[in-house]
Amino acid sequence: MAETVVPSARIAPDKPAGPDEERPFGGSTAPAELDAHAPDAAGKAVLDELVAALGGRDGGTDRLLTDPDTVAPYVHDEAEWAEYGSPLCVVRARSTDEVAAVVAACARHRVPVVARGAGTGLSGGANAVDGCVLLSLERMREILEINPTERLAVVQPGVVNDELREACAAQNLWYPPDPASAPWSTIGGNVATNAGGLCCVKYGVTRDYVLALEVVTASGEILRVGRRTAKGVVGYDLAGLLVGSEGTLGIITEITVKLRPARPAAPRTVVGFFDSLADCGAAVAAVTEQGLQPAVFELVDRECLHAVNAWKKAGLPENAAALLLAQTDLPEPAAEAEADAILATFERHGATEAMASTDPTEADALFAARRMAYPALEQLGMGMLTEDVCLPRARMAEMLGRIEEIGRTRGVRIATVAHAGDGNLHPLMLTPHGDDEARKRTKAAFDEIIETAVDLGGTVSGEHGVGLLKRDGMARELGPGVMALQRSIKDALDPDGILNPGKALG
Amino acid sequence: MAETVVPSARIAPDKPAGPDEERPFGGSTAPAELDAHAPDAAGKAVLDELVAALGGRDGGTDRLLTDPDTVAPYVHDEAEWAEYGSPLCVVRARSTDEVAAVVAACARHRVPVVARGAGTGLSGGANAVDGCVLLSLERMREILEINPTERLAVVQPGVVNDELREACAAQNLWYPPDPASAPWSTIGGNVATNAGGLCCVKYGVTRDYVLALEVVTASGEILRVGRRTAKGVVGYDLAGLLVGSEGTLGIITEITVKLRPARPAAPRTVVGFFDSLADCGAAVAAVTEQGLQPAVFELVDRECLHAVNAWKKAGLPENAAALLLAQTDLPEPAAEAEADAILATFERHGATEAMASTDPTEADALFAARRMAYPALEQLGMGMLTEDVCLPRARMAEMLGRIEEIGRTRGVRIATVAHAGDGNLHPLMLTPHGDDEARKRTKAAFDEIIETAVDLGGTVSGEHGVGLLKRDGMARELGPGVMALQRSIKDALDPDGILNPGKALG
Repeated sequence: MAETVVPSARIAPDKPAGPDEERPFGGSTAPAELDAHAPDAAGKAVLDELVAALGGRDGGTDRLLTDPDTVAPYVHDEAEWAEYGSPLCVVRARSTDEVAAVVAACARHRVPVVARGAGTGLSGGANAVDGCVLLSLERMREILEINPTERLAVVQPGVVNDELREACAAQNLWYPPDPASAPWSTIGGNVATNAGGLCCVKYGVTRDYVLALEVVTASGEILRVGRRTAKGVVGYDLAGLLVGSEGTLGIITEITVKLRPARPAAPRTVVGFFDSLADCGAAVAAVTEQGLQPAVFELVDRECLHAVNAWKKAGLPENAAALLLAQTDLPEPAAEAEADAILATFERHGATEAMASTDPTEADALFAARRMAYPALEQLGMGMLTEDVCLPRARMAEMLGRIEEIGRTRGVRIATVAHAGDGNLHPLMLTPHGDDEARKRTKAAFDEIIETAVDLGGTVSGEHGVGLLKRDGMARELGPGVMALQRSIKDALDPDGILNPGKALG
Repeated sequence: MAETVVPSARIAPDKPAGPDEERPFGGSTAPAELDAHAPDAAGKAVLDELVAALGGRDGGTDRLLTDPDTVAPYVHDEAEWAEYGSPLCVVRARSTDEVAAVVAACARHRVPVVARGAGTGLSGGANAVDGCVLLSLERMREILEINPTERLAVVQPGVVNDELREACAAQNLWYPPDPASAPWSTIGGNVATNAGGLCCVKYGVTRDYVLALEVVTASGEILRVGRRTAKGVVGYDLAGLLVGSEGTLGIITEITVKLRPARPAAPRTVVGFFDSLADCGAAVAAVTEQGLQPAVFELVDRECLHAVNAWKKAGLPENAAALLLAQTDLPEPAAEAEADAILATFERHGATEAMASTDPTEADALFAARRMAYPALEQLGMGMLTEDVCLPRARMAEMLGRIEEIGRTRGVRIATVAHAGDGNLHPLMLTPHGDDEARKRTKAAFDEIIETAVDLGGTVSGEHGVGLLKRDGMARELGPGVMALQRSIKDALDPDGILNPGKALG
């Protein structure tokens, strides 16, 4: 690879990088050769127009790439096993006008356009389809405005989540959505997938923060939807509709987000180890029922704890079924009262070890098991498929039990971290490389987890999106009537189906 | 009127009740006779089907009304001067199945359906169009579930806002959206208009609380959109799209709302009188810029203060340009610190009188000027047209000045209350009854306020909706490209245009 744009594969370090790897999810297989797609007549016409519009290709410009080595890093996201095709080219747009020119050319010749940010997605939503223009927005990364009076920021789509957060912090403001990919993922990608994160248990997800969008429509028109005012009810909520639409309804070229005032610096941390999943689930429900509002409320399961012990000799209880971690960010002394109440709830519901801390170093140590879970699992050197089901809180413990059972009966090692307060579970399915039988078992476990989640009243994706991996699950969850409604929206906004075709809809 | 369903006209007690009143907003004039619409062939066919489906009409059933006296209370909402037509009939549905049967019959014969709740809207969104079936949901008023573990409630659309709030409070839960119509307006209507209220300055509007909807589509199909889980990103956000769609995309028959834990009982109240609008606007901006988060942050202007003095001899400062009222609901002692900071900010920005209180009786007295503003203005015995523009906070003072100027130059008495923290202004335009010239001047002032709001970067409706009154303003605000996008959504979900035709879109 001539250039690494996809960040080092943090969650799936052994993610297949080449075309020879089997990708059992989705309709077509990987391309026989990872190469710029041999263009047909429409593709050639689009390429000619793009060369004219962007001033050349490859050596002639840094905007338009067709060289296989430079194209390669753009063809898929971080979704284990999701299919990807051979793009016609990659465009690294520098402005909304360039995006509009690209989409207009594609619209004229009915060539697909797949938009992408940093490529940290986990469901294949940004993967190339054969013959598409891959439109990278990574170079549109200016923070255009941070406004303390209106409590909003205006950014280009390629701004990295953590960069926006830091820029806001410098003005005593806070942009809450904090996906695990925050050091790398872009606001454009976060908006396209309606990204969640740790603090959404109290503060909401990306959609809750999007006020307005500039968008390039399927015909290449530049429009602004939404508002800069605190309130507004004029027209259907098109900005909200575009959030989470995974590039299938329009290409987002500018984003106005709502901000919050900065929070108190040091939250209080409470942890508890539980020997049974049922106790752990009851503790989560009891915290919620008492009206407590932890700003972070996470779960780490037995497999994760064992992996952390194996890696770091951390001495975490080997018998624990799960660890719960909560943080409260209320102003003192309300935070102390809330932390005490959470601790008492953990103890009342059978926590074998439970403790609270205000000391930042100690709090950090308490959170280490959560932070180290992914890297510890990575040490195992296996393929790792990340799941993302979300359950009603009252069914979370039951779902955790079912996941353990599915792992046992299918012969798949599954480690789970969860945003417990939201009922959002991330079972991580570990599969030895080069073991086709194991891969089939994993696929079967994946399908069974999705089916179980729907059966228990949950959703097949809490925060990662449908992309390619959850298309079947989506159809199962929504049913034919709602799927038809979804399709009618897609047809209305993208009648020729050129925007990220095959993604997000079943 | 045989039955009063529209609540006593609280905001506009002198609202025209009969057909002879001029209604200068909208395309057609009021019907020559307020009567059930003389049905054409399609109307007759629908009536026949409804009689069969609902078991009779008028005396034969309480569901289907065609008698002019019983139909009359349903034909318009509380929007001063908005046009309304003659409906074919009124259906008071008791179940989702009945709603589906009505819509299916209308779809077969392409007869319009206009849904309504309590009819407290202020933009004509629920007004009858000629020959429509007026579908009242007021009798679907069961609270189906309040769930402390999932922090949600499931209600039928006819549940009154305050009833839901009270039922939640009994379980230490809170449904925040609190439009001024909360004692009468229904959750269905609140959802259809994306209602706001006082506490949305800190806690958000109706859309922020809607998790899922059951909806009857334009073809009469019953579908469920949204989710019961805390998070979910599967498919386009159809529930969010339906919120604020004013019955033009589907009829909402069940609503699942997110709840919050109950708040501390006694907030702290801070008030300040300002001699200049500029000082007052600067104080609002400064409160926001410091990261303070009042749970209520209101403004009452000079005209309102004078009206309250005239009515109640309240002794409010006659020279004040405006009064600001704020409440903080943080846990103590953070509330005290926030109240002190707000008070200091008011004083620093020129408040002539400013004070804070924790005593509920005293706090109530401080809020009296806000609470009494509407009834005091009603004492004047004039027609009252309620405006609803929302400005960026930094432009609010300028807009208030422009409104005063528009009132002066147009010869219209305008009193303004505002959700100051949101920049959401409600100029109330007072017009003597039976004075056609005054009415024309008021219409001109209304138009100029809308145009000015758009020119200053605001929106023509912060929380009341487009309905009939804001259709021109909407087109001006959004522009032709976004209007076409809005229209494409309407065409996709209601291809025959039977759902509340002519509303919400320009």
